[in-house]
Amino acid sequence: LPLTAESGLRVVLVRARNPLNIGAAARAMSNFGFSHLRVVNTYNVPFREARSAVGASEVLKSAEEYANVADAVADCHLVVGTTAAGHRELRHPLRRLEEGGQVIREEMQTHRVAILFGSEKVGLTNEELSYCQWLLHIPTREEHTSMNLGQAVAVCLYELSREANVTSPARQPEPATAEELERITAALIEALQTCGYLSSEVTPLTKEKMRRLVRRLNLSSEDAETWLGMLRQMSWRP
Amino acid sequence: LPLTAESGLRVVLVRARNPLNIGAAARAMSNFGFSHLRVVNTYNVPFREARSAVGASEVLKSAEEYANVADAVADCHLVVGTTAAGHRELRHPLRRLEEGGQVIREEMQTHRVAILFGSEKVGLTNEELSYCQWLLHIPTREEHTSMNLGQAVAVCLYELSREANVTSPARQPEPATAEELERITAALIEALQTCGYLSSEVTPLTKEKMRRLVRRLNLSSEDAETWLGMLRQMSWRP
Repeated sequence: LPLTAESGLRVVLVRARNPLNIGAAARAMSNFGFSHLRVVNTYNVPFREARSAVGASEVLKSAEEYANVADAVADCHLVVGTTAAGHRELRHPLRRLEEGGQVIREEMQTHRVAILFGSEKVGLTNEELSYCQWLLHIPTREEHTSMNLGQAVAVCLYELSREANVTSPARQPEPATAEELERITAALIEALQTCGYLSSEVTPLTKEKMRRLVRRLNLSSEDAETWLGMLRQMSWRP
Repeated sequence: LPLTAESGLRVVLVRARNPLNIGAAARAMSNFGFSHLRVVNTYNVPFREARSAVGASEVLKSAEEYANVADAVADCHLVVGTTAAGHRELRHPLRRLEEGGQVIREEMQTHRVAILFGSEKVGLTNEELSYCQWLLHIPTREEHTSMNLGQAVAVCLYELSREANVTSPARQPEPATAEELERITAALIEALQTCGYLSSEVTPLTKEKMRRLVRRLNLSSEDAETWLGMLRQMSWRP
């Protein structure tokens, strides 16, 4: 089940200065199925530019503008700020994305949740952070904690949609059956005998080796057929 | 344990056209602790521009250039291509990032692993995909599968470094003890009596209500002290 408008997440960009970053954040939202973007701007030129860009997403077009953080999060039950690290905001609990994402995922099923992303240069101010119940940080290398805004949004939204749809892989080819693999093993041995790699008397030990060798290929059924055809051709004595 | 140069991952950007995306990919690598960037370019102007940009990362400066995919992945034991969706490459197994990431994480402990990212417009060609053992895709909304290149790299690298360092949250404040909470409950009741909200005769039921009310606050020990001070002040009769 992809997360939709009903999921209750509000992505709040606070004083983003680069229209490209605003556009990238909106694109990631669209990729991961989040539709409610809010922008807090005292200076609204970057947002206007992002919105008027060619290919601006529906998310961007329907974004809502607010004059301050208080208004932007007023209707939200959980407000989470993002931070590069816990150097400053000692008054807030700090959660890594893996753990905090779990809390947000659960909460957003029933309530409106806001995630705040600060400006590119300075992040969120202490005043803006004061509206947050706790802070989220993406686990980065200590020597380089500052992420690009659009990438930080993408990573957070990936994590939030991550477990909502954990399934088996979308499409895996049908694996080859043991019978098919055994036919291939036989064909391989025969081909190796044809070329003189193996003698005409093959020991049980050698057969086992070849069998394991073939199993480690992880062949699909379709590929097994191809391989069988090739090996049989190789074992044909002219 | 952050992943380092020894981890064996090679991020391969194939025909990326936008220097900003190349820079963003390198930045995400630096954030998540991956240092080996390879670029495949027949037309190398975007790479030159990205490398000469102000603030170009060490990752970008030490990136290696290759003329084609074959050369770029020649020394790698596992080669994985990224794709927006499984519409084209029916000959390759397709893994979602959650599952494929796990495979790569394990493999890169002992072998060199390459992840290929195609150009912004067309992704990887069938010829380029033919060097891949399998394909990785980020689980996006079906209606909007095409991700920004820099964001796709960031999300993949986040997933790869995700489980390498799953721990309890980096820093959580010390929670208040039951004794502290009980003191607060008492102070609260007294304060409510002082203001006339509760009568001087408090029933056991009311006490229980107040106790539960205080417990739901999830107070830290430090905050509990503050609250206690405030409540005691409030219960002081002038």
